[in-house]
Amino acid sequence: MKTSIPKLLDINNQDLNRTLQKVLDSKTKPHGSLGQLEDLALKIGQILGTQYPVLLAPQMVVFAADHGLCARGISAFPSDVTWQMVENFLAGGAAVSVLARQHGLALTVVDCGVKHDFLAGRPAGSVRLGLQVRKADGAEHGTHNSSSQAAMSMAQCEQALIHGRELVKSLPGNALLLGEMGIGNSSAASLLLARIAKLDIAQCTGAGTGLDAAAVQRKTAVLREVLHRHADLNQPLEILAAMGGFEIATMTGAVLQAAHERRVILVDGFIASSAVMLAHALEPLVLQRCIFAHRSGERGHEFMLQHLGVEALLDLGLRLGEGSGAALAWPLLKSACLILHEMASFEAAGVSEKTSAAPELG
Amino acid sequence: MKTSIPKLLDINNQDLNRTLQKVLDSKTKPHGSLGQLEDLALKIGQILGTQYPVLLAPQMVVFAADHGLCARGISAFPSDVTWQMVENFLAGGAAVSVLARQHGLALTVVDCGVKHDFLAGRPAGSVRLGLQVRKADGAEHGTHNSSSQAAMSMAQCEQALIHGRELVKSLPGNALLLGEMGIGNSSAASLLLARIAKLDIAQCTGAGTGLDAAAVQRKTAVLREVLHRHADLNQPLEILAAMGGFEIATMTGAVLQAAHERRVILVDGFIASSAVMLAHALEPLVLQRCIFAHRSGERGHEFMLQHLGVEALLDLGLRLGEGSGAALAWPLLKSACLILHEMASFEAAGVSEKTSAAPELG
Repeated sequence: MKTSIPKLLDINNQDLNRTLQKVLDSKTKPHGSLGQLEDLALKIGQILGTQYPVLLAPQMVVFAADHGLCARGISAFPSDVTWQMVENFLAGGAAVSVLARQHGLALTVVDCGVKHDFLAGRPAGSVRLGLQVRKADGAEHGTHNSSSQAAMSMAQCEQALIHGRELVKSLPGNALLLGEMGIGNSSAASLLLARIAKLDIAQCTGAGTGLDAAAVQRKTAVLREVLHRHADLNQPLEILAAMGGFEIATMTGAVLQAAHERRVILVDGFIASSAVMLAHALEPLVLQRCIFAHRSGERGHEFMLQHLGVEALLDLGLRLGEGSGAALAWPLLKSACLILHEMASFEAAGVSEKTSAAPELG
Repeated sequence: MKTSIPKLLDINNQDLNRTLQKVLDSKTKPHGSLGQLEDLALKIGQILGTQYPVLLAPQMVVFAADHGLCARGISAFPSDVTWQMVENFLAGGAAVSVLARQHGLALTVVDCGVKHDFLAGRPAGSVRLGLQVRKADGAEHGTHNSSSQAAMSMAQCEQALIHGRELVKSLPGNALLLGEMGIGNSSAASLLLARIAKLDIAQCTGAGTGLDAAAVQRKTAVLREVLHRHADLNQPLEILAAMGGFEIATMTGAVLQAAHERRVILVDGFIASSAVMLAHALEPLVLQRCIFAHRSGERGHEFMLQHLGVEALLDLGLRLGEGSGAALAWPLLKSACLILHEMASFEAAGVSEKTSAAPELG
């Protein structure tokens, strides 16, 4: 098991931090006046280990899977929407497809356990552009119903982690954007949050794709039942196997690998953050490599961000997932790098610096 | 005078609104799940009067001028930084230069009253790429010191408004991004906010380019004195002339003209918003055409946004001005349009819609 969890180096480098801060402060602007964009420049510089970071071949990966718990009516949409949306991603018509195109992000959809055969009727060994099929053994129908048994076996969960790691190894570039699709996966993320962060499930449960208040109450009751069934579990991987999903487990592996390779990891919303939360429970240093794109409109997300002790860049009331929020935040990361590269210094531009005291007061 | 304030049409169109909402709701995503991005699509559609808006030739305009009130030590930087930064904009090394380049925004700097001759030593009739000199008569040294007299005469203020209108008429495209440069102009914006929104000046006054707490207190005392000197003024244009700046007045004219032409106006931070506040005081319907890019870290900005009853897209602790926040928000506007144009509908993509009731509850 331990083989699928890489040990991470502490990449915090005080010398580089000072250099980056000095570069930022030399630029023609009042110190700190670009706010979070400056923090972002520092962070990206730290992750990539240079004062002049360049983001290369950014990869938007949408991890997709189905959830047995949907049999309990916890989602506003039928499970079939998972595979239908995968087809939509591949055809270029989904929100994340549009936004990835806008920002030049390579888009890969990973079938981690979708109840569908995307290669049906094609010759053996066929591939489809933009799709990777990386189902764990026995994941052809998605997870089991976690209200009656563990969603995955430990072996499946471990395999999903390895799939995530292998996937990232196969991708070029130095930036990974996390997206996901899976009808029912806001329930899985809520369950993981409640157990890992030790919060009441009511605080962690939201409308998902659009339940009304009464349906959220029923969803919460089902999730409380699931937690009760798996009350004895405490280890992160056991919790992930019992109540998570194939896409979340695969994404967790991807986060661990990307962190190991010092890629910039841009985290989308509630479900993507749940994978980071799991990766963080296994190896806290992953957070050094993560940037949180936005605070989702989904109820549990702010508590998840609090649990991780992080702040997000955008707060636009997004609650779509797919990686849409990560794609929207992406140009801010590019801006942060460009500030470091292209802004002139006070000296080079011949601009006067701040006066130590105001010239004539009162 | 009235000639420089165009009467605006009410562009609110319920039929178009319903059509836009229908287009958004047909897209393959839960209703409303793209949050403020959907509001943005509605707003841009309303401004441009179509369900398929296209943003064309976006113009970033940086309005620059100097402030006589700087003699009172209200800024952390010397006045010379205004012209030095204009040179930096033109040379491509300032934050807004970098961000405009990133996003393909045409950048124009307007000398509205900078204490500098940018064409000195050049043959008569010279032009400089990216620069427009539109000084009001007698604006060669910036405004007067508003703590001892009106910053501008009414004739100058009126001329600045007309310059702003003429400038916008000369620019192509259907989107205007507002930027500004002027050492001392956060004081002018604070004064305008205090008088127009009837707030105490302490609430409206912040660190500007980086004053410490004691210097903010001294700045506040100076501004209180300015307000006292001009206590008898109530008309927006009189207030603007007495306590504003040439760049703010010119920008106010530009906002009125852009609103008249139904351009999308993307407003930067505290000083750009003060021009919109003035334009709004003259003609409230300008707000129909305005999108607020970000909530600035400058103290008064949130009260200004409250006064206008608007919300901003980003909240990144920016306090640089120049149009940098508007440039950072720009890709969100493009995304909003692309969502309308390029996302597939449920029908076209063969994706199942939301179930009226969850399939099996409890």
